[in-house]
Amino acid sequence: MTSERWDSPEDAERAFYLAFEAGDLEAMMAVWDETADVCCIHPMGQALCGPDAVREGWREILASGQRLQFSAEPALRQIGTELAVSVVREHIRVVGQDKTSPPMVATNVYRRTTGGWRMTLHHVSPAVVAMGNGMEDKPASRYLH
Amino acid sequence: MTSERWDSPEDAERAFYLAFEAGDLEAMMAVWDETADVCCIHPMGQALCGPDAVREGWREILASGQRLQFSAEPALRQIGTELAVSVVREHIRVVGQDKTSPPMVATNVYRRTTGGWRMTLHHVSPAVVAMGNGMEDKPASRYLH
Repeated sequence: MTSERWDSPEDAERAFYLAFEAGDLEAMMAVWDETADVCCIHPMGQALCGPDAVREGWREILASGQRLQFSAEPALRQIGTELAVSVVREHIRVVGQDKTSPPMVATNVYRRTTGGWRMTLHHVSPAVVAMGNGMEDKPASRYLH
Repeated sequence: MTSERWDSPEDAERAFYLAFEAGDLEAMMAVWDETADVCCIHPMGQALCGPDAVREGWREILASGQRLQFSAEPALRQIGTELAVSVVREHIRVVGQDKTSPPMVATNVYRRTTGGWRMTLHHVSPAVVAMGNGMEDKPASRYLH
């Protein structure tokens, strides 16, 4: 794991989605900065914080064996000296199925370490509500904002 | 708006939740860095990117007139030279109601500007599913991860 090195947040993000598509837990965790404070929020999920909780969450998700193909469309990218943030619209296809899945939106945060850029946060949620068409009242009343 | 200044991400975050509780659109937008790339993702919502989309989203949310009280429990805080990230567990109460609301989890990103720290990203989602109890299969199959 520690032999992996990504010299940009974009490289680390590419490795994250490739590991996810491969269903490879060790490749996934190699992208994460397990030495730092990390959190992962899966769809409709609670914040899993700390390396052990993040790893266990991915172990459970990847254990489904469901093979996914991601098309990650960048929506926002901010790169600082130590931290980088990207927001991506995820278009996901289940391999072997034609059905389209609900689009997801993910916020990914990366930290520059002595070993290159590593992920410290992945927050993903279903993007089902289009603002400006009145539908936002539904989640607003269901979820308070 | 431009007279406001927050010297730490924590101060900007406090101002964000106070503006939300007050239902004050101008106070809310004063916290945001409207000169930069910004995105806001409301619960189950699409990524609203750009100052105009962010402002319109908040205008619609705050127009409900529903008064909320937030208790924001920090889960992760990372502060860099230009960017700061915080993950908070939001416990929300509707003023005048006893009903508890589903807990939410929010990722907030702030950028250091010449005018102090400003919000550039708010991504919030319902924290309904506890990992490790088997329930995560439901969203995993509904939302693919």
